[in-house]
Amino acid sequence: MPTPAEYLVANHTTFLEDLKAFLRIQSVSTLREKNPETRQAAAFVVDHLKAAGMTRVELFETNRHPIVYGEWLGAPGKPTVLVYGHYDVQPADKVKDKWTTDPFEPVVVDGKLYARGSTDDKGQILADIKAAQAWMQTTGSLPVNIKFLVEGEEEIGSENLDAFIETHLDLLRCDVAVVSDTAVVDLNTPSLTYALRGLVYMELEVWGPKVDLHSGQWGGSVHNPLQALCEIITALHNPDGSISVTGFYDKAKPISAEERAAIAEVPLTEESWRASTGAAVAWGEPAYTLRERISARPTLEVHGLIGGFTGEGSKTVLPASAKAKISCRLIPDQDPFEIYDLIKQYVATITPPAVRSEVRLLNTGYPAMVPIDSRAVAAAKNAYTRGWGKQPVFVREGGSIPVVATFNKHLGAPVLLVGYGLPDDGAHGPDEHFYLDCFYKGMATMAALLENLGGMTPDEVRG
Amino acid sequence: MPTPAEYLVANHTTFLEDLKAFLRIQSVSTLREKNPETRQAAAFVVDHLKAAGMTRVELFETNRHPIVYGEWLGAPGKPTVLVYGHYDVQPADKVKDKWTTDPFEPVVVDGKLYARGSTDDKGQILADIKAAQAWMQTTGSLPVNIKFLVEGEEEIGSENLDAFIETHLDLLRCDVAVVSDTAVVDLNTPSLTYALRGLVYMELEVWGPKVDLHSGQWGGSVHNPLQALCEIITALHNPDGSISVTGFYDKAKPISAEERAAIAEVPLTEESWRASTGAAVAWGEPAYTLRERISARPTLEVHGLIGGFTGEGSKTVLPASAKAKISCRLIPDQDPFEIYDLIKQYVATITPPAVRSEVRLLNTGYPAMVPIDSRAVAAAKNAYTRGWGKQPVFVREGGSIPVVATFNKHLGAPVLLVGYGLPDDGAHGPDEHFYLDCFYKGMATMAALLENLGGMTPDEVRG
Repeated sequence: MPTPAEYLVANHTTFLEDLKAFLRIQSVSTLREKNPETRQAAAFVVDHLKAAGMTRVELFETNRHPIVYGEWLGAPGKPTVLVYGHYDVQPADKVKDKWTTDPFEPVVVDGKLYARGSTDDKGQILADIKAAQAWMQTTGSLPVNIKFLVEGEEEIGSENLDAFIETHLDLLRCDVAVVSDTAVVDLNTPSLTYALRGLVYMELEVWGPKVDLHSGQWGGSVHNPLQALCEIITALHNPDGSISVTGFYDKAKPISAEERAAIAEVPLTEESWRASTGAAVAWGEPAYTLRERISARPTLEVHGLIGGFTGEGSKTVLPASAKAKISCRLIPDQDPFEIYDLIKQYVATITPPAVRSEVRLLNTGYPAMVPIDSRAVAAAKNAYTRGWGKQPVFVREGGSIPVVATFNKHLGAPVLLVGYGLPDDGAHGPDEHFYLDCFYKGMATMAALLENLGGMTPDEVRG
Repeated sequence: MPTPAEYLVANHTTFLEDLKAFLRIQSVSTLREKNPETRQAAAFVVDHLKAAGMTRVELFETNRHPIVYGEWLGAPGKPTVLVYGHYDVQPADKVKDKWTTDPFEPVVVDGKLYARGSTDDKGQILADIKAAQAWMQTTGSLPVNIKFLVEGEEEIGSENLDAFIETHLDLLRCDVAVVSDTAVVDLNTPSLTYALRGLVYMELEVWGPKVDLHSGQWGGSVHNPLQALCEIITALHNPDGSISVTGFYDKAKPISAEERAAIAEVPLTEESWRASTGAAVAWGEPAYTLRERISARPTLEVHGLIGGFTGEGSKTVLPASAKAKISCRLIPDQDPFEIYDLIKQYVATITPPAVRSEVRLLNTGYPAMVPIDSRAVAAAKNAYTRGWGKQPVFVREGGSIPVVATFNKHLGAPVLLVGYGLPDDGAHGPDEHFYLDCFYKGMATMAALLENLGGMTPDEVRG
């Protein structure tokens, strides 16, 4: 009989085809017209959990997209591992977003699999499922008890997940949670993420005249809502790149000298930053390094501007309103609801008198940090060393996975952020891709992690 | 036999139905997918010029939308009047722009005809055509020679009109031109517009990273193009509402004390401004009255902001680029091409170092003024008094009709701006409408104007 690792290698081609099939499903959770496809992706997860040998697989309905649950609890006395991932993806429009290839027709070029969701998160969660399958197929059992929780609303703020967790604490009880939805530093530097930023996502709307006006008739006498929106957005930052919202940084935990030293061990040079972003000159808080700005400092970003005439050619409209989508990334101990209130108050004070404005909350997620000196973390570190072939470094990540804070709070279990993506995989952007090497090493790492955790008692795993 | 005025009254219902049929044609010149409908509107004009008794009616092809020409030259020795209008309209989307009714299904409510193009300009040009028809049907001839020039590109900057005029000077030779594409002060105050603002319409684009990025991964280190665009737009005005572009006002002719006094005779109170715009507080250059700001001063307006994620829900994208549509209204003696250059230079100096920007020219129109002490103007004044029942006031208008400057320059004929719309008809906005009363009074005014001009020699008309 092959080992789990050998089984995985022998099935690389099969699992790649499985992943391609998964990626062809347009499970864009934010678009209601894609609800059937999003449900189809949930069904795909159900099928593959069954193929992996889960003895109970269930689809739980929510107010929007279903949650997929699967378990195998055939190792009494062994630790129970909860594996989290998501089957939904960000929107992608080949033409508008300028993809080289169809975002929902995966293709492999130069060892990279191009498709929306390839790295975020279909490729990563499928790697975890296939790692479990490898154990079942080669040994008939798993070294640990395992529970899979795969949701379909991660890209829209996990609207229904918290309520589901809170009402299914028994079902989800575990000794450790594993989340594969992060990136490693680079192909040759695996990393364990020990901190994630939180998020508060808002919509800012500005109203001026009661209806769209003709700029020739009324221009020059009306504070144009598009211009007023620009003025408000401009005023949210100081000229040096710091955020000007009163009280914004008050609860932001300073980065300790030790941590800054650790962060400096994985430097982000302006050169490699430029290669990844394609931008000309770095920007942001001058007192912090590039790596700190993107992972350990809070931010305020504009995601979209909407207003007036946006079609071909010219239209001399003076529009009645304008809208922006903005979000903040938060660090411990910033509270997303408190930050929302601060922004609301600040926007009210800077809104020009001739227009009205409103800031609406779209979704939130708390920042999270996980203890790096636990036995569970040691197991993950060793798993990377075995599965990836290199010892991982410890990093903070700039993104947000709100469920990590929820797991901490409700399940009381440590959360291991065991990701397989790369920072410039293009998650959320055009030409998103996933290195085949990351897919294969990810499966191997997860298979090793299950074995390492199985060698410990539940108490040791809980730390 | 009825008089032309009586004929018009007797045919109010018929001509209203004609106008409705005209308005049902979606001749949105800026949208290429509406090219067939735009051509259909040209054909409608052809038919009605023929019905009005024009002896030569011709459709001239251009690079985009055809120009309709019609003439009746059966009054040798009499003045020749060139009537200009346009059959194209601004875009209109019932849902997106929040129209109460379908913009292309005209309905009459409370004496107002609601539809895109009702006031701008289909209702006004059709009134002129029907005034000519009234003379032909009741007397078998017209008091003057008449030439109609009806284009289909007014809403997109009359791209091909100048070239057409320059190459058809003989065809268009006339003693006076009449343009019915302006508004009167209010239902009881007809007005003769003696000045129009010019226009320079531009697109401003800002680029940052090479592709759309994930804000969680790179946010805080990249100068967000949406934010940079907002910063640039904000910096185009001073806090007091004046335009900060270096040199912008250098060639703007000051408003004389006499003119300011004349403008003050038709005051725009903050109250009536508020009723028309629905905005809360007036804005703009503090040294000028509201009427001056909207008609006699240059402006810079933002018409559209485009960038990032603009769909439903949330997407944490940090986009590669952002775009705005902006335009300036110009007064004598500002030159649209010079202003474009000034803006290009200024934007280059205020563009933040971490992004790139470009200002592209979309279209231009020169400002224009017409002499108010000529005999032709006296004829128009009397025509309003007869057709509208009130003596008109003299006003400057804030909008732009670039063809007026072209007529001045190439035909050497005075241009009469004889409009029938009202300032809050909603031209270019949702729920655009045209008072039936304005339609009917407009026809009567034009019929009277033709008679008045026919009572003069060509030399008297030319002034």
